[in-house]
Amino acid sequence: MSALEDLKKRLRLISRYNTAAALLEWDFETMMPEKAAEERAEVIGEISGHAFEMSVSDETWNLVLNAEKELLESEVDKAIVRVAKKELEKSKKIPPELYKELSIETSKAQAAWEKAKTNNDFSIFQPHLEKIVELTKQIADKLGYEENRYDALLDMYEPGLKTSELKKIIEPLRDFLVNYLAKLEKGEKPDNEILKQFFPVEKQKELSIRALNLMNYDFKAGRMDVAMHPFTTTIGLNDVRITTRYNEHDLNDSLYSTIHEGGHALYEQGIPAEFSGLPIGDGASMGIHESQSRFWENIVGRSPEFWEYFYNDLVDVFPELKKYTPEDIFRATNYVERSLIRTEADEVTYNLHIMLRFEIEEALINDKIKVADLPKIWNEKMEKYLGVVPEKDSEGVLQDVHWAHGSFGYFPSYMLGNLYSAQLLYTMKKDIPDYNEAIRKGDFKPLLKWLRDKIHSKGKMYEPGELIKMATGEELNPEYFMKYIEEKFNKVYKI
Amino acid sequence: MSALEDLKKRLRLISRYNTAAALLEWDFETMMPEKAAEERAEVIGEISGHAFEMSVSDETWNLVLNAEKELLESEVDKAIVRVAKKELEKSKKIPPELYKELSIETSKAQAAWEKAKTNNDFSIFQPHLEKIVELTKQIADKLGYEENRYDALLDMYEPGLKTSELKKIIEPLRDFLVNYLAKLEKGEKPDNEILKQFFPVEKQKELSIRALNLMNYDFKAGRMDVAMHPFTTTIGLNDVRITTRYNEHDLNDSLYSTIHEGGHALYEQGIPAEFSGLPIGDGASMGIHESQSRFWENIVGRSPEFWEYFYNDLVDVFPELKKYTPEDIFRATNYVERSLIRTEADEVTYNLHIMLRFEIEEALINDKIKVADLPKIWNEKMEKYLGVVPEKDSEGVLQDVHWAHGSFGYFPSYMLGNLYSAQLLYTMKKDIPDYNEAIRKGDFKPLLKWLRDKIHSKGKMYEPGELIKMATGEELNPEYFMKYIEEKFNKVYKI
Repeated sequence: MSALEDLKKRLRLISRYNTAAALLEWDFETMMPEKAAEERAEVIGEISGHAFEMSVSDETWNLVLNAEKELLESEVDKAIVRVAKKELEKSKKIPPELYKELSIETSKAQAAWEKAKTNNDFSIFQPHLEKIVELTKQIADKLGYEENRYDALLDMYEPGLKTSELKKIIEPLRDFLVNYLAKLEKGEKPDNEILKQFFPVEKQKELSIRALNLMNYDFKAGRMDVAMHPFTTTIGLNDVRITTRYNEHDLNDSLYSTIHEGGHALYEQGIPAEFSGLPIGDGASMGIHESQSRFWENIVGRSPEFWEYFYNDLVDVFPELKKYTPEDIFRATNYVERSLIRTEADEVTYNLHIMLRFEIEEALINDKIKVADLPKIWNEKMEKYLGVVPEKDSEGVLQDVHWAHGSFGYFPSYMLGNLYSAQLLYTMKKDIPDYNEAIRKGDFKPLLKWLRDKIHSKGKMYEPGELIKMATGEELNPEYFMKYIEEKFNKVYKI
Repeated sequence: MSALEDLKKRLRLISRYNTAAALLEWDFETMMPEKAAEERAEVIGEISGHAFEMSVSDETWNLVLNAEKELLESEVDKAIVRVAKKELEKSKKIPPELYKELSIETSKAQAAWEKAKTNNDFSIFQPHLEKIVELTKQIADKLGYEENRYDALLDMYEPGLKTSELKKIIEPLRDFLVNYLAKLEKGEKPDNEILKQFFPVEKQKELSIRALNLMNYDFKAGRMDVAMHPFTTTIGLNDVRITTRYNEHDLNDSLYSTIHEGGHALYEQGIPAEFSGLPIGDGASMGIHESQSRFWENIVGRSPEFWEYFYNDLVDVFPELKKYTPEDIFRATNYVERSLIRTEADEVTYNLHIMLRFEIEEALINDKIKVADLPKIWNEKMEKYLGVVPEKDSEGVLQDVHWAHGSFGYFPSYMLGNLYSAQLLYTMKKDIPDYNEAIRKGDFKPLLKWLRDKIHSKGKMYEPGELIKMATGEELNPEYFMKYIEEKFNKVYKI
């Protein structure tokens, strides 16, 4: 057997433990009886820990080095060794005790965050966040960076992207969004109460399943269940499961959660079978992953053409909506609002929420601000970017759990997803001249095929920067997103 | 830390992998999308194999030997070491290659069995069964025995029980059952068509949930799902899941599958938390486990008193059954028939099916008969014991998958469960004088408490023979079962 084959065998072996851990976690969130939580956490810890130890072991490292010496011909094989090596190098840089300490601190921090949020008292969370920031800085220093300590963190979620590039993107985008938001106020507000009537769960489920079938999600290689916070998980490339949730007084919630997760799932279901269990058998980055979910959720699912087609399904399931036109529904799903909560934000304001968090994270990691000042800084930025200020920290700096998880560097993925998806859209439209007509007919196959060719089939072979250049012919360019927002919301707000 | 604590830590660690494997298997049977089967089999194989290797490792063995040297005071601690040692000794006796060979053969045999059954052609299965019998004999020889090679196999499922004891039990029981079956034919047949009308799945599910709640099954430490072959699985003592199935034209099927599995689950939910992850944190044997499921299914669930109470739930869910009396329902659920298929057999004939299989197994393992002669021997015994002869081998010797799985020694558990449960019943009735009245009131707590005290709380601390003596004051005695059958079916058949 060749050294590469030995390496692949080892990596696939490790991935079986990660698969088991993924199922244990999926079950935790969807199926598990409540009394089992404590036992389960121990089982997940053990299995994931074992997988991690196997992956950073000398045995695996030697297999990588041996495979690297081999004359590899195919791009795929080269990528397997390259990605495996990069990931291993990173993992090996962090002393296990540091990981362990962070893991203990984040457990405590999550409990403190919940308490702080419930009691609307940032001071409960503050000391925990300080510790987490301290440990995260240590991790960043161990990982190493050239320009900016935050680069080391960003690289974990968006390999290759630099903080300086992100800043360059953000500046014009922020100005545009702040101005555009003001402009929308002169337009005609959609009636978003249409989607806030009473919609029984079972019927919403039926509508969600129709949407997934339309998207060509493969139910023979996946499932849809309920979870408090919707997510997609890959138990295997033939077992990509999505979760959604139902709010009986908001049709937007479940339908767009489902379509969003469906977009993530289509990505995973489209990764080549031969990549399974290997480090390239994954999405290119969190941002690219998010581009797929946002593409289906917003660019397709909130388009006028989509509603021209899907309106029939909608009124078939909810005949009481017949009194509205497809355009009414389209506009209602695109209601824009200066609001406090990121997860409920529309396409126009969403990125402003992310910028705020990115700026805070970057400043914290580089010692430019203090954790103690976060509530004040948060509120100032909210006012500046969104024109609203939370009355309570529970609706402000305490709204997201990410920092309690120690996820620094993750938030920008959400924004990148939006930008990538718009850039993909304009290239796709060039390649598929009857793009709008296809959606109007409910024929999403050409769209999916394009995404499969350009994105899904590449797995994690390339860094997101390379991939987006290969797919669109240019580097990440926020102009496309701004153009998309303007074109669409001028229509929604009849400007 | 004491040697015992070290051992416990190790055993609990190993049990986490077994927990993961149990969840992977549960998911396989209930939730998994169909395309994932092949990948999943590999993951289960890896995780279970890892758990097995850990358990038979020198490290574990040395911990057992160290703990054994320690002065242990409590019965529980002594049992932990004793059971761990016994199980490990057994596992160490079998060379891994032999296990592996059997596992490969049983995979092939299962496929062959399916084909043989579909084509009604025993010759397709015959060479595979011959190999499995051969390997099973080798395993029995490695395990060792005093009197009878079959004892070694029996011990895997019913520790301590000897073939000679089983034969002594079977002889009078078979005569009784054959005679009693003839006697029933002179009685008045119940109308079992009552339960063979159309019953929608959702309503059957509702009735099943009511039955489980009545039994005090804890849904916060369990779930109920659908599987082709109902089973109970323990993902942890706080996560004991049952599965059932629905036949829209047979109310018996799901209701009694649910109650049966509920009985298994009550046992597991009743094992003390401190036993969790340890070798005593399990049922005493397959037979004792089956005694719990059969107790609830038949002795309680098919009693006249049960139907006096549960009739109200039944007609609440299925008002169309109001035209029948509780007695009609009771009698319908106890219809007796000379039939070909074990899994569909009633309480009177069930044990005859088991005896037939036991006799064949024992003879095969001791080279008294040949695999090639099985169809003939099967049919002869069917005629002798049950008075019916299958027209096709698919309804005869090919009906069960157990031998293709290599499960020799397992079938007697089903019979033992029936016998144990009746013996428990008569002791319980002495301890709970208003036993019948409690059931009539739907108050199953005293029954469950008794089972918890006498059986569940002991886990796997004792061998089944010891346990049954502790619980009932005497050794396994088939007289109780015969008495029970006669008392009940005289009522059903109005003799």
